[in-house]
Amino acid sequence: MARLPLAAAGVLRTQRIYEAIRSQIMSGALGAGAALPSTRSLAAEWGVSRTTVTAAFEQLIAEGYIETRHGARSRVAQGLERAPREPDMPAPRPEPATLSAFGRRVERFPAPPASGPEHLVADFRYGDLAAGDFPLRAWKKAVNVALARRLPRLRYGEANGLPELREALQGYLWRARGVRCEPDQIVVVNGSQQGLDLCARLLLDRGERAVMENPGYGLARQVFLAAGADVVPVGVDGEGMRTEGLPPARLAYVTPAHQFPLGSIMSIARRRALIAWAESAGAYIVEDDYDSEYRFDVSPIPPLHAMDGGRRVLYIGTVSKTLSPALRLGYVVVPDALAVAFAKAKRLTDRHTSTLEQEALATLIQTGAYERHVRRVRRRNGERRAQLLAALSAALGNRMTVAGADAGLHVVLWLNGVPRAREGEMVQLAQQAGAGVYPITPLYADAATLPRPEVAGLVLGYATLEPSVITQGVQAIRQALDAFCDLAAAGSRS
Amino acid sequence: MARLPLAAAGVLRTQRIYEAIRSQIMSGALGAGAALPSTRSLAAEWGVSRTTVTAAFEQLIAEGYIETRHGARSRVAQGLERAPREPDMPAPRPEPATLSAFGRRVERFPAPPASGPEHLVADFRYGDLAAGDFPLRAWKKAVNVALARRLPRLRYGEANGLPELREALQGYLWRARGVRCEPDQIVVVNGSQQGLDLCARLLLDRGERAVMENPGYGLARQVFLAAGADVVPVGVDGEGMRTEGLPPARLAYVTPAHQFPLGSIMSIARRRALIAWAESAGAYIVEDDYDSEYRFDVSPIPPLHAMDGGRRVLYIGTVSKTLSPALRLGYVVVPDALAVAFAKAKRLTDRHTSTLEQEALATLIQTGAYERHVRRVRRRNGERRAQLLAALSAALGNRMTVAGADAGLHVVLWLNGVPRAREGEMVQLAQQAGAGVYPITPLYADAATLPRPEVAGLVLGYATLEPSVITQGVQAIRQALDAFCDLAAAGSRS
Repeated sequence: MARLPLAAAGVLRTQRIYEAIRSQIMSGALGAGAALPSTRSLAAEWGVSRTTVTAAFEQLIAEGYIETRHGARSRVAQGLERAPREPDMPAPRPEPATLSAFGRRVERFPAPPASGPEHLVADFRYGDLAAGDFPLRAWKKAVNVALARRLPRLRYGEANGLPELREALQGYLWRARGVRCEPDQIVVVNGSQQGLDLCARLLLDRGERAVMENPGYGLARQVFLAAGADVVPVGVDGEGMRTEGLPPARLAYVTPAHQFPLGSIMSIARRRALIAWAESAGAYIVEDDYDSEYRFDVSPIPPLHAMDGGRRVLYIGTVSKTLSPALRLGYVVVPDALAVAFAKAKRLTDRHTSTLEQEALATLIQTGAYERHVRRVRRRNGERRAQLLAALSAALGNRMTVAGADAGLHVVLWLNGVPRAREGEMVQLAQQAGAGVYPITPLYADAATLPRPEVAGLVLGYATLEPSVITQGVQAIRQALDAFCDLAAAGSRS
Repeated sequence: MARLPLAAAGVLRTQRIYEAIRSQIMSGALGAGAALPSTRSLAAEWGVSRTTVTAAFEQLIAEGYIETRHGARSRVAQGLERAPREPDMPAPRPEPATLSAFGRRVERFPAPPASGPEHLVADFRYGDLAAGDFPLRAWKKAVNVALARRLPRLRYGEANGLPELREALQGYLWRARGVRCEPDQIVVVNGSQQGLDLCARLLLDRGERAVMENPGYGLARQVFLAAGADVVPVGVDGEGMRTEGLPPARLAYVTPAHQFPLGSIMSIARRRALIAWAESAGAYIVEDDYDSEYRFDVSPIPPLHAMDGGRRVLYIGTVSKTLSPALRLGYVVVPDALAVAFAKAKRLTDRHTSTLEQEALATLIQTGAYERHVRRVRRRNGERRAQLLAALSAALGNRMTVAGADAGLHVVLWLNGVPRAREGEMVQLAQQAGAGVYPITPLYADAATLPRPEVAGLVLGYATLEPSVITQGVQAIRQALDAFCDLAAAGSRS
């Protein structure tokens, strides 16, 4: 390896810097023509004088590794196409991925659905919230309070969450949902998705059976499939997931307060049957209460968790539907016997959820600002919902059937005239007319041999849309439906 | 079930509320003596009038389910010890946990080490940072900028991280570490711990072999053990992990820039040998660059990632040592072939990392504030380090040997006079004297049959301590050592 013709002092550093850059070039990490950082930024980064860096650069120039044009950044010499490589350096040909079984299952999952095209009149994408509904001032204040609260030191927090937040959540869950638990049964997670992932990892072994609603929440199904579970889809009707003839399983995933996506509310009888099934099967029930803050015509029904006292029910909640999906804050209420395993698993997973945001949410709940906000957005979304239902019946009348409008932030629109096989065409036509609408078919398990309406279904989220926009969006859907019928008629005539 | 003697109108709602509370009592979710929420908060929560709630309460009182004292909250009747239970309601006896194999492995891990007792003169706990070093103003500004940036809607972000942040990190990694990658090879995670967990899940199958440094980072070992891997501990010396005779494996975990905990820097020769081993074994190398921002006497050595062009090396970095461990922000640079699997796995795990904090970090890096901050804390911690080394040699002289002081935020203190078997006693004595110190033994794998110094070792973190405190802390360690020697002498005399 070339040596520098210099002596003493800064030499050693210059030498090391020279070799660091040279070895990046030799290893191909620095391709021909690649720009080097400025001597200033390298000097600052490496904590040496610019002279030291410049000396190293001069040597590299002298040896033809890099070249420099006046004023411009130094670059790896153009002539130097993949310089002669040092003996034991690997060739940079790409390597095929060698993944675990989990990795191979995950890699095969479909890519997340692209959001609708830009410039839509109205995008009914489900899951988004209106930025205008975010309690900006209150959150800002809470974050700054948290920032200003100078802890004696910055340290890792408790894996299952800040004690203040778990206490605040304990009170909120009891007031809002009749869920009773100890703060140590609450695990603060990064949104309900992490809660689902922890449940799958801690409760399911490869090849074990999990039952879940069909149609159902796609990312829940993926989490259970990724864990290697045998996921059995169970039909859903107006009373929620069917409970007669449930097969034995290790786990059941349900959304009893507002079935996703169909929107039915699980009847008391089914709730009791499900709990009795879990008792006899020795199974756990994962109750995903993802949008229960939004109830319109209905009075609350106690969650499964309240009905079985949290013995076999794991209760998952989130602020993604009340504050923002971008925050990544949720919680799982677990049975006593599972609390230690969940806390230890959360610690291995990512230590704990961001302390700053946990503190901010705790402040919001403690001051009552969170519940005031929930009531406000419930009212706003109630107005959006009313507007949507009115616009739909005015524009489509008996050409459609709406399902699941009693609660939540979305409805399912069944288009009576459109055969299920042509759902995709309707989605296309609607987008062309300016309405972003999303097909229900992907929410059915591939394995689904279960009855479902023979007609096309659309999932319409409305939480981001203002009333006037909702009306225009529904008009666009109507145009699309008319266009579809014309095509169909033309087709049948020809 | 009892019916209410009321007619029409609000009746149905009163009836439902009555039944909701009653079923919580019947199911045991609401124990005898438990306080009910105020009628006001229930009315607000359920979106009904207080009269409606009061009517339900009156009925419950009439039927003896709840009782109320003047002015006080209503409570579940004291007499009502676990009321007669409805037929299909499960008995509330506790249930043994039934965990997956992963869950059983995780549950067996030791609880996290308790932090030292309060009121210590100096706590040398490793991993904490000084709150005073946090760039409060800059971070606050960046967070508020992010909050003020009104997105058209609040929506889920990209699983592998905000594009702005991944681009900012691409530039930073090249300037600071000579790591070259495309933004799509970067996965933003919740601190390096989540990066480790994703590597274990995506790259290791149960029973496969992973090699790692011994002594080494405990939570890395736990992550690999939790995945069911066969974790092979490999000895560490002054040149980092030994590479001669490495067994074939799927994965190697190393901290080449500053071995945790011993602090040695992996030599170029060993780095090349490790990469060659990975090539021949078809293994991946997980390079944990957890504290490489802190270099004192040494010039940078290019990371393994730069040496192999990122073909078999997954590079993990974090801001836990520069900004705060409470933020939970880190990143993994993965080979092209793994990028899709990592992004999809991150989505299943928790959708994505908090958008707000990703935006704030992106702003800090884009504006140069992050690198200015890194230089500032590097200087501060260099001063703390110098103070610690000076104090140690003044107080302990040749009674100790210090290791790993060239980089990072901690040193290892070997106490020449104290046999390894009595490390625990020394830790106790030091705490009694007012110094929180932490034993090195837990960082050795249980399976460790490898040579290690016969004397007691302590891991001393100094990033939270001011110079005067450091001196006092070292004095306390010295007192403890003297006390230990007196005891030993007394012991040998008797």
